[in-house]
Amino acid sequence: MNDHVYKHIELTGSSTTGTDHAIQNAISKAAKTVKNMHWFEVVDTRGYIDNGAVQHWQVTIKIGFRVTD
Amino acid sequence: MNDHVYKHIELTGSSTTGTDHAIQNAISKAAKTVKNMHWFEVVDTRGYIDNGAVQHWQVTIKIGFRVTD
Amino acid sequence: MNDHVYKHIELTGSSTTGTDHAIQNAISKAAKTVKNMHWFEVVDTRGYIDNGAVQHWQVTIKIGFRVTD
Amino acid sequence: MNDHVYKHIELTGSSTTGTDHAIQNAISKAAKTVKNMHWFEVVDTRGYIDNGAVQHWQVTIKIGFRVTD
Amino acid sequence: MNDHVYKHIELTGSSTTGTDHAIQNAISKAAKTVKNMHWFEVVDTRGYIDNGAVQHWQVTIKIGFRVTD
Amino acid sequence: MNDHVYKHIELTGSSTTGTDHAIQNAISKAAKTVKNMHWFEVVDTRGYIDNGAVQHWQVTIKIGFRVTD
Amino acid sequence: MNDHVYKHIELTGSSTTGTDHAIQNAISKAAKTVKNMHWFEVVDTRGYIDNGAVQHWQVTIKIGFRVTD
Amino acid sequence: MNDHVYKHIELTGSSTTGTDHAIQNAISKAAKTVKNMHWFEVVDTRGYIDNGAVQHWQVTIKIGFRVTD
Amino acid sequence: MNDHVYKHIELTGSSTTGTDHAIQNAISKAAKTVKNMHWFEVVDTRGYIDNGAVQHWQVTIKIGFRVTD
Amino acid sequence: MNDHVYKHIELTGSSTTGTDHAIQNAISKAAKTVKNMHWFEVVDTRGYIDNGAVQHWQVTIKIGFRVTD
Amino acid sequence: MNDHVYKHIELTGSSTTGTDHAIQNAISKAAKTVKNMHWFEVVDTRGYIDNGAVQHWQVTIKIGFRVTD
Amino acid sequence: MNDHVYKHIELTGSSTTGTDHAIQNAISKAAKTVKNMHWFEVVDTRGYIDNGAVQHWQVTIKIGFRVTD
Repeated sequence: MNDHVYKHIELTGSSTTGTDHAIQNAISKAAKTVKNMHWFEVVDTRGYIDNGAVQHWQVTIKIGFRVTD
Repeated sequence: MNDHVYKHIELTGSSTTGTDHAIQNAISKAAKTVKNMHWFEVVDTRGYIDNGAVQHWQVTIKIGFRVTD
Repeated sequence: MNDHVYKHIELTGSSTTGTDHAIQNAISKAAKTVKNMHWFEVVDTRGYIDNGAVQHWQVTIKIGFRVTD
Repeated sequence: MNDHVYKHIELTGSSTTGTDHAIQNAISKAAKTVKNMHWFEVVDTRGYIDNGAVQHWQVTIKIGFRVTD
Repeated sequence: MNDHVYKHIELTGSSTTGTDHAIQNAISKAAKTVKNMHWFEVVDTRGYIDNGAVQHWQVTIKIGFRVTD
Repeated sequence: MNDHVYKHIELTGSSTTGTDHAIQNAISKAAKTVKNMHWFEVVDTRGYIDNGAVQHWQVTIKIGFRVTD
Repeated sequence: MNDHVYKHIELTGSSTTGTDHAIQNAISKAAKTVKNMHWFEVVDTRGYIDNGAVQHWQVTIKIGFRVTD
Repeated sequence: MNDHVYKHIELTGSSTTGTDHAIQNAISKAAKTVKNMHWFEVVDTRGYIDNGAVQHWQVTIKIGFRVTD
Repeated sequence: MNDHVYKHIELTGSSTTGTDHAIQNAISKAAKTVKNMHWFEVVDTRGYIDNGAVQHWQVTIKIGFRVTD
Repeated sequence: MNDHVYKHIELTGSSTTGTDHAIQNAISKAAKTVKNMHWFEVVDTRGYIDNGAVQHWQVTIKIGFRVTD
Repeated sequence: MNDHVYKHIELTGSSTTGTDHAIQNAISKAAKTVKNMHWFEVVDTRGYIDNGAVQHWQVTIKIGFRVTD
Repeated sequence: MNDHVYKHIELTGSSTTGTDHAIQNAISKAAKTVKNMHWFEVVDTRGYIDNGAVQHWQVTIKIGFRVTD
């Protein structure tokens, strides 16, 4: 922990499978450019409906990552 | 999008399986009488407990549908 | 319902599997010492990330149980 | 509980008597057209003042009722 | 005011012109089927962007109308 | 309504009788110095406990009054 | 006040009579096992409906009590 | 900035024209008696409806002004 | 929608003209460096006052844009 | 406590030293004109930055004082 | 982290010195009976005023501790 | 102020000394890469506990900085 500083970014991930999968999709995409991610927090959960069924689950999360020197 | 107007309704769906399934149950029920549903948003997530286990998952959602002329 | 009184406790459950499982873990642990649990409500949903993937899902819930005489 | 679905409506009841009575007034009015009401939740409590006294208590509530097939 | 009861509905109006116009659009549409509307309250303000400019302003409002006998 | 301007003040009233009475007490006290009060809104409800019973009910309200020229 | 420490517990009281009575019921029940209770704060107000009338008023409160050495 | 102290007041302005105008009306009225106003913040936006159209836009704002010695 | 991921940024735009214009100013500035912006949401509305009039309208918005591969 | 009535005012204090000092500054200023102040509550904490350092800590508080007859 | 479960308790600590010290006082008191405390979160910050100065700083915190088997 | 646009970033600073110091640490770190920072706002205050004492104070802040052309 020391005197580390963390930065937060907010992302919306989507998935045709479910809410947990939408969260994992957002994190996987972020991992391509962001290092040292430590935690996430769900901000809100939404989805798109078509033909009386959920077509895309969409979860907005904050991700915290450690700022390096 | 044009100058469409959307109406929102709030429903609680329940399921013995899990939170995503409770959402889908609420939407399936609504689909019997509501046309043109476009999105949902989770308002809160609760459940009933019996014998130290979740018996029913209950998720309250807002659904938005387009108002037709 | 009568004139029963309910007490609420707040717990965070964690799981390597997903959010629903983290909720069930918190309730199972509470069941070892708390009787008459009736409902839960999700307070917030978080998780720990390592190597660009969710390692632990963490869900904080309030549990309500009936106070006996 | 099974896989029932509940719908929520929001009403404001008023009363010259007090807050509990304003809630009961909203529910009595709703009962004329809505079946299977199960619970209410207070959203906010307001009132109109005239001559330095409360003339009407106004309580806004959400009511949940079971959707039948 | 007497012992009137008011019901609330939630709508999203959209407009290519601006936020005030989106509110008026939602109310005009509601006026086709709802009588005795008395007030509105803004719930949230959003919009769609294309080519670096707002294409549609979208305002979600609650409308209160008096329930007649 | 015209182009009137309203000012809001926030008060806590207390009572040994109950919550509605605490609200009325705050308004009666305000009426000694404030004219043209039109409405109130409950901000929060608290109380002091002694010997396992409520000794004072305390309700914090916002009061709106019309600003005269 | 000195350097006292207070602990908070959250309870739901119910009553067939009204909201103030539901609060008092929760406090009376707590008084059987908790000493040095000083204040309460209303968290939310709900109730169960049957036959178009409130059958039980349910008020959730936080109670603060002084921790003794 | 130094060690200045600011006081906040809360006002509702109304207008037949629109939301921005309602804000300006509240500030103009306040300016007759309050000096050194520095900023405002919108608290909520409402309005009165008649004949299916907005008759008065009502915006509640907090105004901050510097307290002089 | 597919499995797209959206990132959110938060900006405050200002304008001497009004709130809608302040939103458009923030989006125009962002458009110089951000591609694929899809929506905005108002976070809060403030302004600076001088001589009893609004000098600058300031609106804070979240903007969502699609993350490309 | 009796049937006392309390009024609340909202102030922002600033300090070059820190957050606790900014609170004390707001209270000291208020004490010049307000009698019978009993408590404060922090509403939000902000500050101004220059040259990569906090130049002024700004804390907004509500102060409650007893209204005398 | 594994599948640990954490319980939260809410306490108010007070101090004549300042807000950080009030937090530490609450934690020191809790440490006499609670093992495995891991984190705290500030819920609200208040204080008592006498003679135009803060006499007691009061900070309410949630503390999370690991539940052992 | 003119028609400047401000961007906000969210950071968590930590410190073994106290909350004000944790805020200053986050700002100092940000100052290495961000120019034109003007203000911060506290989002939440937390900390890590070990051996019955706060080991790290952690404060999450939003920082606003002017976007240059």
